[in-house]
Amino acid sequence: MKKELLYEGKAKRVYQTDEPGCYLVDFKDDATAFNGEKKGTITGKGRLNNAISSHFFELLAKQGVPSHFIRQIDERQMLVKQVKIIPIEVVVRNIAAGSLAKRLGLAEGTSLKSTVVEFYYKDDALGDPLINRSHIRTLGIAQEDQVAELEQQALRINEVLENYLFTKGLLLVDFKLEFGVTSEGQVLLADEISPDTCRFWDASTHEKLDKDRFRRELGSVEEAYQEIWQRLGGTTA
Amino acid sequence: MKKELLYEGKAKRVYQTDEPGCYLVDFKDDATAFNGEKKGTITGKGRLNNAISSHFFELLAKQGVPSHFIRQIDERQMLVKQVKIIPIEVVVRNIAAGSLAKRLGLAEGTSLKSTVVEFYYKDDALGDPLINRSHIRTLGIAQEDQVAELEQQALRINEVLENYLFTKGLLLVDFKLEFGVTSEGQVLLADEISPDTCRFWDASTHEKLDKDRFRRELGSVEEAYQEIWQRLGGTTA
Repeated sequence: MKKELLYEGKAKRVYQTDEPGCYLVDFKDDATAFNGEKKGTITGKGRLNNAISSHFFELLAKQGVPSHFIRQIDERQMLVKQVKIIPIEVVVRNIAAGSLAKRLGLAEGTSLKSTVVEFYYKDDALGDPLINRSHIRTLGIAQEDQVAELEQQALRINEVLENYLFTKGLLLVDFKLEFGVTSEGQVLLADEISPDTCRFWDASTHEKLDKDRFRRELGSVEEAYQEIWQRLGGTTA
Repeated sequence: MKKELLYEGKAKRVYQTDEPGCYLVDFKDDATAFNGEKKGTITGKGRLNNAISSHFFELLAKQGVPSHFIRQIDERQMLVKQVKIIPIEVVVRNIAAGSLAKRLGLAEGTSLKSTVVEFYYKDDALGDPLINRSHIRTLGIAQEDQVAELEQQALRINEVLENYLFTKGLLLVDFKLEFGVTSEGQVLLADEISPDTCRFWDASTHEKLDKDRFRRELGSVEEAYQEIWQRLGGTTA
């Protein structure tokens, strides 16, 4: 059913399909960090991120949060609703890490007194800069009510995922979401939810079980992605 | 009336006075840029910035925008109301320049479709990073209603100054404000409004008449500050 390649990103390829209004997403093993400066491969990542993302999208749907996800096609591929991606990365943070720790001068691991929501302008050439609502307005990349919806949905997704992950012995430190707009104008969660786009820490040891193992050369990268999938109830493959 | 030195910043000294609830601000000729990396002296700057700031604070008061300003004491000094400075720099932008042009990939001089308001965390060690409302909340550096007030006042100040400066043949490209809280809890415009804290361009030639002449080694720095003061009706000194 795979047809024309529409878009190839750092971690996924998106194809046209025969089903009207549907795209096919193919997860790659390629890994990049620091806006493409660091490149590598994480064996099994494509398969695991497809499984993990499908799992989270199904969980969210059950909790009343729709997404572009329709169904898994095979190990590496999922069928999704066709949306036009809003060029804003929405980041939600519960614990200080990465760029936030640096920006605000907080020790990594500091519990945030209130949830942080950030918008980044999805533009590789500019290095995906932090932006605010007035930047979004002047750029004209989303409407006021869409931005409010992004924030609202992101906070709801955080609530569902944080609580769920805690039952699996995991802390949801922070994560990045992307949203799209359907042909009917609905703002819909899109992209993926995986160790590529979230920081997951073991709740007791604070061991990092996400892409930071790749970014920071911590070793056992594949094992971390596998560990997340197993904690979610996935069978070892 | 000058007493104990309370604080020495890059461009001003603040002193205790005999008048209860009042501080004395002394404007220096010292100039710094790029978070203190570039240092120099602009002859006459202290005197001119004191005169220009006093002029703007008086103009704003007439337009219903109060500030910490009480009165000029002498060439370099003004008497102000005692406030506790909120550690947030509020930047208002009408035309893309400086860090905004870089952040959003806009050519310097691009008219912004809507006014941009930015908050920066006033922290030299962190390089005064851009922050949003959720950062302010988690840092606990200002209350929600105070942040709304900062934005509202900044937009009103922009309206008054932009219109006024246009009658003087000047474009108000962007500017930085600081606010303080009085002992009664009132949020009050503080700091200064000068070519150190604003970008002023000649409306016809777009010649820069502000600290960018110092930052970018454009020459005629003193002359630019003097030109602003003359356009505002000040006598040459």
